[in-house]
Amino acid sequence: MFSLKRLYEKTVPTPPSDYVRLDYVTLKQFVADVFKALGVPSEDAEVAADVLVAADLMGVDSHGVQRLKRYTGGIRMGSVNPRAEVRVVKEGEATALIDGNAGLGQVVAFKAMRLAIEKARKVGVAAVGVRNSNHFGMAGYFVLQAIKENMIGGVLTNSEALVAYTHTLSRSFGTNPVAIGAPARYPPPIIFDAAVGVVPIGKVEIYAKEGKKLPLGWVIGPDGKLLEDPKEALEKKAAVLPLGGLGEEMGGHKGAALALIVDLLSGILTGASWGKGVRHTLSDTPANVGHFIIALDIESFMPLEQFLDRVEQLKSYVKSLPKISEDSEVWIPGEKAWLTMETRKHIGIPVHRNVLKELIDEGEKAGVKFNVKMLKETA
Amino acid sequence: MFSLKRLYEKTVPTPPSDYVRLDYVTLKQFVADVFKALGVPSEDAEVAADVLVAADLMGVDSHGVQRLKRYTGGIRMGSVNPRAEVRVVKEGEATALIDGNAGLGQVVAFKAMRLAIEKARKVGVAAVGVRNSNHFGMAGYFVLQAIKENMIGGVLTNSEALVAYTHTLSRSFGTNPVAIGAPARYPPPIIFDAAVGVVPIGKVEIYAKEGKKLPLGWVIGPDGKLLEDPKEALEKKAAVLPLGGLGEEMGGHKGAALALIVDLLSGILTGASWGKGVRHTLSDTPANVGHFIIALDIESFMPLEQFLDRVEQLKSYVKSLPKISEDSEVWIPGEKAWLTMETRKHIGIPVHRNVLKELIDEGEKAGVKFNVKMLKETA
Repeated sequence: MFSLKRLYEKTVPTPPSDYVRLDYVTLKQFVADVFKALGVPSEDAEVAADVLVAADLMGVDSHGVQRLKRYTGGIRMGSVNPRAEVRVVKEGEATALIDGNAGLGQVVAFKAMRLAIEKARKVGVAAVGVRNSNHFGMAGYFVLQAIKENMIGGVLTNSEALVAYTHTLSRSFGTNPVAIGAPARYPPPIIFDAAVGVVPIGKVEIYAKEGKKLPLGWVIGPDGKLLEDPKEALEKKAAVLPLGGLGEEMGGHKGAALALIVDLLSGILTGASWGKGVRHTLSDTPANVGHFIIALDIESFMPLEQFLDRVEQLKSYVKSLPKISEDSEVWIPGEKAWLTMETRKHIGIPVHRNVLKELIDEGEKAGVKFNVKMLKETA
Repeated sequence: MFSLKRLYEKTVPTPPSDYVRLDYVTLKQFVADVFKALGVPSEDAEVAADVLVAADLMGVDSHGVQRLKRYTGGIRMGSVNPRAEVRVVKEGEATALIDGNAGLGQVVAFKAMRLAIEKARKVGVAAVGVRNSNHFGMAGYFVLQAIKENMIGGVLTNSEALVAYTHTLSRSFGTNPVAIGAPARYPPPIIFDAAVGVVPIGKVEIYAKEGKKLPLGWVIGPDGKLLEDPKEALEKKAAVLPLGGLGEEMGGHKGAALALIVDLLSGILTGASWGKGVRHTLSDTPANVGHFIIALDIESFMPLEQFLDRVEQLKSYVKSLPKISEDSEVWIPGEKAWLTMETRKHIGIPVHRNVLKELIDEGEKAGVKFNVKMLKETA
């Protein structure tokens, strides 16, 4: 059912001639070196680099190394604290509230999940709230952190406002992703990782670049009209519709409410910013992003071996469902990302030539030589 | 911003002449008496009746007293155990696994949430898995149970298969609702309670009764076509599409994955049935429904008073967002249900004349006189 030999990419570089393929190991080293050069302690720099490159490996290119300059920029502007010491503000047997000290979100969330795992190992489940953090990249990374410890992980975060709440017009909530996952006996594990908007804003940017029309129902303009023109959408800072779309007929109120609930847990409960209050990393004040992180010990409910068997049964069940057409494929949550990771470990991470230039620039500014192995140019 | 004096109903009886208005207090007593007559211990019967009538009060009519005969039928058929003794199979400081002993889902879930609240009070957060339960009615009820104790509640359950997983055709997962809520300083509290399908099957039944066409994108037929005819949809046992709709363009894969995740926690992790294995209450074997219930102690993160202030700020924020049109209203999750409850406590619960007959019949069969106060006929 699942073959590591199958080459598959969730997102395919288009056009291929605009991209190069970079080896993920040396790329990760380079990114870590840049962070270190900017004052990030070695261990933290390795974590931040691992999260960024993992996003590229798993096909979440928007959250990968193309965002490096967002984080280095934040460090240079002072909104991101490279030497942040994460502080536990409040602690119970199964809970903690962490102040991220305006550190890199990747590092703060990693430490929060590590603490949640420790606690869950003792008492079965733990919830860790985080305030004063930054954008942490791909939520699924921290779920995978729990999965590696044979736990179920749940990760929520708020983010700068982009989604229009139902019956409203403007960007009022973040795309506030929800990620939940569990280990499996065989790869891939199950990793659900979804923003609560219909579509990531990055996809609108791609449509703009490629000169394609947006499907009606992705984006709403400030005048309440659904927009088809991606350039107009970006210029007007139009809002993304919540999962379920416009109004209530197709369940848009469910997606909008979910955005609010993620902010309730990540922002309201933790003392972080929320709604329009969440800042972009490249801003004059700390973003004060909030996260909410859960680890759940499987053995507190059922023997791990039995659970892993049952997960495989669930995966087989999904794979054997009657398909809508012969050529359609039915996917387990996280499977596309996993296949992409296996593929890109072999053939390299596709990096746009413009991003390549930026990376080299970032290296120069930080005094780090760009000695990343280029596997081949895509063609 | 919120007035108890405003009359509002989330679902309006149509046509009004087909309905009577029943007083909720005596209706609840009647339902409890029927359960008691069927052997349900007094305290459990009160809980089950309260859950059913709360659904009617809150406008979730499909989960209200019109379902009484489903539960009494289950007791008569032997698939529901009226004298079920809920058993804790496995227990940790912050977790428990409960066997519902095929009891009424309402009673089992109530006890599971009560245990979760007790544990969360001690260690900050608790997760309780439940197997061998039955359909528990409205998920939001158990969230409200946590809210009354000034906690955040999270409630998941699986249910009999109705939703088509993305790129597949048939009913493979339940509508697997997710409910999460938090207390507020002033009513309403925040209660998100949403199934992961685009629409509840009950709505398709209403469209069939009213002879209306379905919006394209609610239901998919066994041949892969989107259906407009509600009668055809019901006859063919067509599947409801996941939140986000058909395919992946509007995020349908997110809704489908969420259905799977709810089953992972409620079914796979607890040892309950899952997927197509979950039975209807009126079946020859126990349904073996699974639930997953979380209680979170707010004070473990921030002083309650501060949290309640922040929740009011969140509510005001949502209410003041620029609206899509003058006459549209922006709702806080759970607000419609809350207003409906306040309204129906005054003017009574609308019960269809056919359902009224059924209730009287149920009373007669159980030897319970139907002395429910009729407030007035709607007109």
